[in-house]
Amino acid sequence: MSKRLSDCRVTVVGLGLMGASLCMDLVQGHFCREVRGVAHRTETALRAFFADAVDQATTDLHAGVAGADIVILATPVRTIVSMIEELGAILWPGTIVIDMGSTKGEICAALDRLPTGIQPLGAHPMTGKEQAGFTAAEPGLYVGAPWVLTPLPRTSPAALALVTELAQAVGARPFILDAQRHDRLVAAISHLPFLLATALVHAVADTGEDDPMVWELAAGGFRDTSRVAASDTRMFMDILATNREAVLAQVDAFDAHLHELRTLLAAGNEADLAAKLTRSQQLRANWRKK
Amino acid sequence: MSKRLSDCRVTVVGLGLMGASLCMDLVQGHFCREVRGVAHRTETALRAFFADAVDQATTDLHAGVAGADIVILATPVRTIVSMIEELGAILWPGTIVIDMGSTKGEICAALDRLPTGIQPLGAHPMTGKEQAGFTAAEPGLYVGAPWVLTPLPRTSPAALALVTELAQAVGARPFILDAQRHDRLVAAISHLPFLLATALVHAVADTGEDDPMVWELAAGGFRDTSRVAASDTRMFMDILATNREAVLAQVDAFDAHLHELRTLLAAGNEADLAAKLTRSQQLRANWRKK
Repeated sequence: MSKRLSDCRVTVVGLGLMGASLCMDLVQGHFCREVRGVAHRTETALRAFFADAVDQATTDLHAGVAGADIVILATPVRTIVSMIEELGAILWPGTIVIDMGSTKGEICAALDRLPTGIQPLGAHPMTGKEQAGFTAAEPGLYVGAPWVLTPLPRTSPAALALVTELAQAVGARPFILDAQRHDRLVAAISHLPFLLATALVHAVADTGEDDPMVWELAAGGFRDTSRVAASDTRMFMDILATNREAVLAQVDAFDAHLHELRTLLAAGNEADLAAKLTRSQQLRANWRKK
Repeated sequence: MSKRLSDCRVTVVGLGLMGASLCMDLVQGHFCREVRGVAHRTETALRAFFADAVDQATTDLHAGVAGADIVILATPVRTIVSMIEELGAILWPGTIVIDMGSTKGEICAALDRLPTGIQPLGAHPMTGKEQAGFTAAEPGLYVGAPWVLTPLPRTSPAALALVTELAQAVGARPFILDAQRHDRLVAAISHLPFLLATALVHAVADTGEDDPMVWELAAGGFRDTSRVAASDTRMFMDILATNREAVLAQVDAFDAHLHELRTLLAAGNEADLAAKLTRSQQLRANWRKK
């Protein structure tokens, strides 16, 4: 008989925004037998424990994962990759290992090198906010969020079913994709927007060097368009480094459209400029109205 | 003795998002003697009247402005410019004329051609949302918003004081700038973000042609960064056409930063890439915390 989520001891490694928010939901909903948190810093482990975000907290990875049915890696992408190498030697057979990383190619390759008997599965819950760390964590973060699952050929249907149950328990909407397809899509909708927001902040900062009034006047258009530039730098360095080719392709696709807009504006070609603006206006206004 | 706002008959021409929201605030706060609205369509005039958004409503510009102490032009920028030409012949001496246009150069030039005796003053309340029209209007839209005032050399201190009182009455924060400085700053913080959001929607749509799943997965990063692309096309056509040089300069400044980010990523220069990301992360995270 296959295992149910309510029978499982779940260990979340990394108690930042994503990991700690998930722990809070799992604890408050009583979805698992036990929720353990592994933090890098003692202070974070203590805070999580005394905030009742976890049932148990430790800074010791080996102790944290011992006896766990499901291990969830919730650190920056390249830390996940190196942690998978470390975990291979210590996990019990039958353990399900998933991650919450924002890119999937390198992580799934590392997961596939885990010893036979361990059940790996890539995962990426697509939510968050620009604040990072345990202090930004909150229950309900995953409600309504797409949660991509990238099973490997070796992933068992039972493991996939259990992780799907976990994602749905916290209110997320699971989607099953392969790693390459995931990485191409998130390059367009997440990594490209981050780079645009970053370049926008630099452009406005240049204007602000001459005239600091620009920061006083900046209103909704700047606020929304630049918001993701405030995201954690280390997290995004790992994302960009592990999804470089797909990101560069999206930057080039964007750049072609921006140049077309620039050319139409410079030439005073109002008919074609209006047609191009109308198309994106309608696409964006109708998104999610379907 | 100088006139006070509470003595004034105010006529707002254009009952879209900006004009109708202002009328609602003026009526509900009893800040003026009378609030009249001039709409292009009979239906809008009737809706505004029966929603108590205005004390009087008409579709007749001449009737609407007759006897007004303050006339506020709240239409797209190039309609404002042509309306100023038309108003010159019919306004009473002493009338204050302001506008709510998003660019100020061409409007202030037109305002300066009004007959002597009329008191013109450029104005731009910097708020809004991507929905347009009377149905999107709401009280309180101006609370906390920067409201730029661009007086002409001929603008009297009394007219400037009265319009400042009006902006503050609805909760806005007045800033006095010249038209050229205004137009340069809004190119950076408003018009550039609109073009970036527009090009982003087109880039994502290209990806969506091959894989419509991209629209399902698009989450917060895309949502925020692309939001202003849903803005009214006609409004933005007028903005771009009347601020072309400043907008092109900002597109080029942005493009230089995006290309630098692209080059650093392609070369795997993590130290310099991280330094550039850290700078914008800090600028954006600390904005408005001062």
